[in-house]
Amino acid sequence: MNKLQVFQKMIDEGLKQIPLNGQPPELYRPLQYVLGLGGKRMRPALTLIACDLFDAPPEDALPAALGIELFHNFSLIHDDIMDKAPLRRNQPTIHEKWDGNIAILSGDAMLIKAYQQIAETRLEFLPVVLKIFNETALMVCEGQQLDMNFEKKEKVTINDYIRMIEKKTAVLLAASLQIGAIIGKAGAEDSGHLYEFGRNMGIAFQLQDDILDVYGDAAQFGKRTGGDIISNKKTFLLLKAMELAERMPYKKEELLQWIHAPEFNPIEKVKAITSIYDYLNIRPVAEEECRQYYLKAISELDKIHTNSDKKSSLQALAKSLMNREM
Amino acid sequence: MNKLQVFQKMIDEGLKQIPLNGQPPELYRPLQYVLGLGGKRMRPALTLIACDLFDAPPEDALPAALGIELFHNFSLIHDDIMDKAPLRRNQPTIHEKWDGNIAILSGDAMLIKAYQQIAETRLEFLPVVLKIFNETALMVCEGQQLDMNFEKKEKVTINDYIRMIEKKTAVLLAASLQIGAIIGKAGAEDSGHLYEFGRNMGIAFQLQDDILDVYGDAAQFGKRTGGDIISNKKTFLLLKAMELAERMPYKKEELLQWIHAPEFNPIEKVKAITSIYDYLNIRPVAEEECRQYYLKAISELDKIHTNSDKKSSLQALAKSLMNREM
Repeated sequence: MNKLQVFQKMIDEGLKQIPLNGQPPELYRPLQYVLGLGGKRMRPALTLIACDLFDAPPEDALPAALGIELFHNFSLIHDDIMDKAPLRRNQPTIHEKWDGNIAILSGDAMLIKAYQQIAETRLEFLPVVLKIFNETALMVCEGQQLDMNFEKKEKVTINDYIRMIEKKTAVLLAASLQIGAIIGKAGAEDSGHLYEFGRNMGIAFQLQDDILDVYGDAAQFGKRTGGDIISNKKTFLLLKAMELAERMPYKKEELLQWIHAPEFNPIEKVKAITSIYDYLNIRPVAEEECRQYYLKAISELDKIHTNSDKKSSLQALAKSLMNREM
Repeated sequence: MNKLQVFQKMIDEGLKQIPLNGQPPELYRPLQYVLGLGGKRMRPALTLIACDLFDAPPEDALPAALGIELFHNFSLIHDDIMDKAPLRRNQPTIHEKWDGNIAILSGDAMLIKAYQQIAETRLEFLPVVLKIFNETALMVCEGQQLDMNFEKKEKVTINDYIRMIEKKTAVLLAASLQIGAIIGKAGAEDSGHLYEFGRNMGIAFQLQDDILDVYGDAAQFGKRTGGDIISNKKTFLLLKAMELAERMPYKKEELLQWIHAPEFNPIEKVKAITSIYDYLNIRPVAEEECRQYYLKAISELDKIHTNSDKKSSLQALAKSLMNREM
C-alpha cells in the first residue's frame, strides 16, 4: 500500500467507527446508505496528507478529516434534492429511495454528525479549525445558491462562473488541506500556500469535469456523456461558446434554438451542441483555462517549505487527479 | 425593565449584530426575514437566566444563547417545509415566500450560523458546550423524524408520544438551561437539575399546547383553534381519546369516521371531535398530565443550591409560561 492508500484505509475505518445506528431508523439508515456508497474520500485524504506533509502524525487530523467527509456527504444529499438528481454514484439518491422530507432531515443529521467529528479536534486547534470549517461551509452554501441562480439567469459571465465553482467546489478542497496543515503545525505562510494550491486545483478539477462531461469516455468517467448539454447547464464550455458565438449570429441562433427547444432528441442535441463547440474550438480553450489553474496550483505547492519528497507525492496526486486516475 | 426584559433586549441586540448581509442575497435575505419575524426568544433567555442563576455574568453565555436561538430558527425553517406549513408567526414561511430549495439551503446556512455563534464560547467551556449542543441537535432531528413517522403509523401510544415531544421540543429547552449553567460554572449536580427542570417544563409546555389548540382562545393563543383536530395530529388528547374509546365502540367508531373522512366541514369536525373529547373527559386528564410534568420541573428547581431570590424568579417564569403570559 502506498501512503495515499494507507490514508484512505484510515478514513474508511474511521467512518465505520462513527455510530450511525441511532433511533429512529428512518433518520439513520439514509446516513449509513450514503456513506456506504463509497467515493474516493478525496477531501479527508487531503487533510491527512497536509498534516503528514509537516511531519505531524496524521491521526491527529483524523477527526477533522472525517468531519469534512461527512460535511461533503451532507452537501451532496441536499444538493441532490435541489437539483432533483435521481442518481448518485449510480445508486438512487435519498429523496428517490425514501422521500424528500427524509432527505432534508437526514442531511441535517449528517451535518450535525460532521460537527461532532470536528469537535473531537484537539483543543489547541479547535477554535481555528471550527472557524475555517464554518466559513467554508457557508461558502459552499453560497456556491450552491449561485449555481441555482445561474439556472434562471440569462446572462452569466465566465468570471461569475469561476466564482461560483470556487465557492461550490474549490474552497472545500482548499480548507481540507489548510485544516490538515494547521493540525500539522504548519506556519501561516505554508498553510496559506496549501490553501491556494487546493483552491486552484479545485477550479481546475471542476473545469476538467465540464470538459469530461462532453468529451469524456462515459465508461471511464462514470457519468453519461452530455448530461450538462441536455440540461442546458451553464458550464465553462457553454458560456465560452455563447461568448465566442456573439460574433457569429448564425451559430448563436443555432445554439439558442437547441437551448430553448421545448422538445428534443437528447442524442441529437448532444451531437449538435458538441459540433458547435468543435466549430468554435471550445475544447482547447477550456483545456488551456484548466491548465492555467493547475499550473497556478503547482506553483503554490513549490513555495511551501517542507520535505521535498512529500511535496512531490502531493504533486503526483495533483497530476493523477487531473488524469482522473484516483 | 425586569431582568427577563433586560435579557431579551441583550438577545435581540446580539441577533442584530450577526452579519446576515452576505452574497448572494437569495441565501441571506430569508435568514434576515425569519429572524425579523420576532418570537419570544425563550430558549436563549433561559440560557442567560441559567448563567445568571449562578452569579456569573450573563454576557459570557450570550454567544451560546444566540447559537441556540439560530438553531431553533433553523429547525423551524426545515420543519415548516416538511410539514408544508404556509404560515409562521402569521407570516408566510420561507418555502411559501420564496421556494422549497431556498428554504432548504437558507436553513442549512442558519444551522452553520448557529455553529459560528457556539464557536464564540470561551475556550474553557467550548468542548462541553459543543458536545451538549451537538447531541441536542441530533435529538431534535430524531424528534422531528418520530413526529413524521407518527403521521403514517396507525398505533401510537401515549408513551411514544411523550418520548417524541421530549426530543422534538423539551431537550432543547433543557440544553438551553444546562449550557447557561455550565458557562455560569454551576456544579454537575445543579446543572443536571436545571436540565431536568427544562426537560419536564418542555413536556408540560407541549402538552399545554395540545390543550390550547382545542380549548384555547384563538385571539390570545395566536393560532386557529382546532388546527390539530383538522389535520388529525396525534396529540396527547387524540391518543388519550383513542385509548379511552377502546371500551366504547360507538364513540370509537364516531372518532374514526371523522379521522378517516375524506371530505368534511372543518368547523363541524372540530366541534364533533371536541364534543367526543368532552364526553370522554379528556381535558382534565390532559391538564393533570401537564400539571404532573410541571410539578416535577418545579421539584427539580427546588434541589438547586443557589440564591433563592433568583430561583424564585425562575419559578415565576415557569408559572407564567404555563399561563402563556410570556
